[in-house]
Amino acid sequence: MRNLKLIVLVGFFAVSAFAQKRANHHKIVFQFTNAVDTLQQKAFINQLNNLTAHWPDAKYEVVIHSMGLPFVMSAKSKQLNAIKALRAKGVRFLVCENTMKNQKVTKDQLIPEVEYVKVGIAEIVEKQEQGWSYIKGGF
Amino acid sequence: MRNLKLIVLVGFFAVSAFAQKRANHHKIVFQFTNAVDTLQQKAFINQLNNLTAHWPDAKYEVVIHSMGLPFVMSAKSKQLNAIKALRAKGVRFLVCENTMKNQKVTKDQLIPEVEYVKVGIAEIVEKQEQGWSYIKGGF
Amino acid sequence: MRNLKLIVLVGFFAVSAFAQKRANHHKIVFQFTNAVDTLQQKAFINQLNNLTAHWPDAKYEVVIHSMGLPFVMSAKSKQLNAIKALRAKGVRFLVCENTMKNQKVTKDQLIPEVEYVKVGIAEIVEKQEQGWSYIKGGF
Repeated sequence: MRNLKLIVLVGFFAVSAFAQKRANHHKIVFQFTNAVDTLQQKAFINQLNNLTAHWPDAKYEVVIHSMGLPFVMSAKSKQLNAIKALRAKGVRFLVCENTMKNQKVTKDQLIPEVEYVKVGIAEIVEKQEQGWSYIKGGF
Repeated sequence: MRNLKLIVLVGFFAVSAFAQKRANHHKIVFQFTNAVDTLQQKAFINQLNNLTAHWPDAKYEVVIHSMGLPFVMSAKSKQLNAIKALRAKGVRFLVCENTMKNQKVTKDQLIPEVEYVKVGIAEIVEKQEQGWSYIKGGF
Repeated sequence: MRNLKLIVLVGFFAVSAFAQKRANHHKIVFQFTNAVDTLQQKAFINQLNNLTAHWPDAKYEVVIHSMGLPFVMSAKSKQLNAIKALRAKGVRFLVCENTMKNQKVTKDQLIPEVEYVKVGIAEIVEKQEQGWSYIKGGF
């Protein structure tokens, strides 16, 4: 009888560990790489606004690298207010420091809402490994 | 002895639950966001044709949002026959209603082969959570 | 007592099977589809260089299809040396044979560092099914 309990317990943990990925709140990591075109900036903001309205409790991370930097540069972003509002809702904006180095962009050129990661793509990979869904943002 | 059977059974279920994702038929959710350029429409159709020929029994969903709408608009699509043929093979085409609202496109402007989802990206996320592979379509 | 050992053993295997995906070295499959623009070629090489420097022991596959072919064509690639160096580090470059057929490109036009797959997207899907992370390369 005691054995049976133990067996059921082990089964329960095995199944619940497996189901966890599915049962969690939604977790989405976005890649944004093309902000030179301001239509891309606008389209991406629409995507974030629509999704955060649809799932207010989900976790959101935006990883910005390659040609995506202008999106979060004080002098170039066309979406400063929208980004501020999304940040207030919990969306995190992570900028790739390697990209910054390549393009000689410094932190003082970026808006205060961003955070930093060494290698943007590594961040996206690690999030996928942790069960986050990956979406290429923009169009 | 009976305990051993039970243990083996529990182990079997745990392992089979884990393996299921891998053993299933292939399931692919495509994101298509850029149909203004008709070369993109053509490239995407090539991708769908090649993949469905390679894996006729896989499950396919195409989520259309952002600048992807012209792909399934009666007046703008360059691939009406190809889409019809793919639909007949079981490929589903899902259009983002949020995108339609943003761009003031109504259902009567779209081809009858499509279905609708409230938020296109949410559909892609849910499919990933259910073990589907995600592919950004086009180029 | 013997039963307990068995139970623990089964639990251990179930949990370790589940955890395996996470514990493995990083495995990344890149999709590269847009090499007509040489800025795209350059941006993608930067991404590969940065990531392989950050994670030298990870597994890397680059799947080239659609408009990505010029990246690995002897006469058109702007990144021959960089590709050679990445190949020497273990990065694999896989070209979609369906794309080659569509664009009437033959193997003798491609650099010797590449390998071939029948359907590029099928390769990306299978890698995702095996727990690899997927990244759209370029911008």
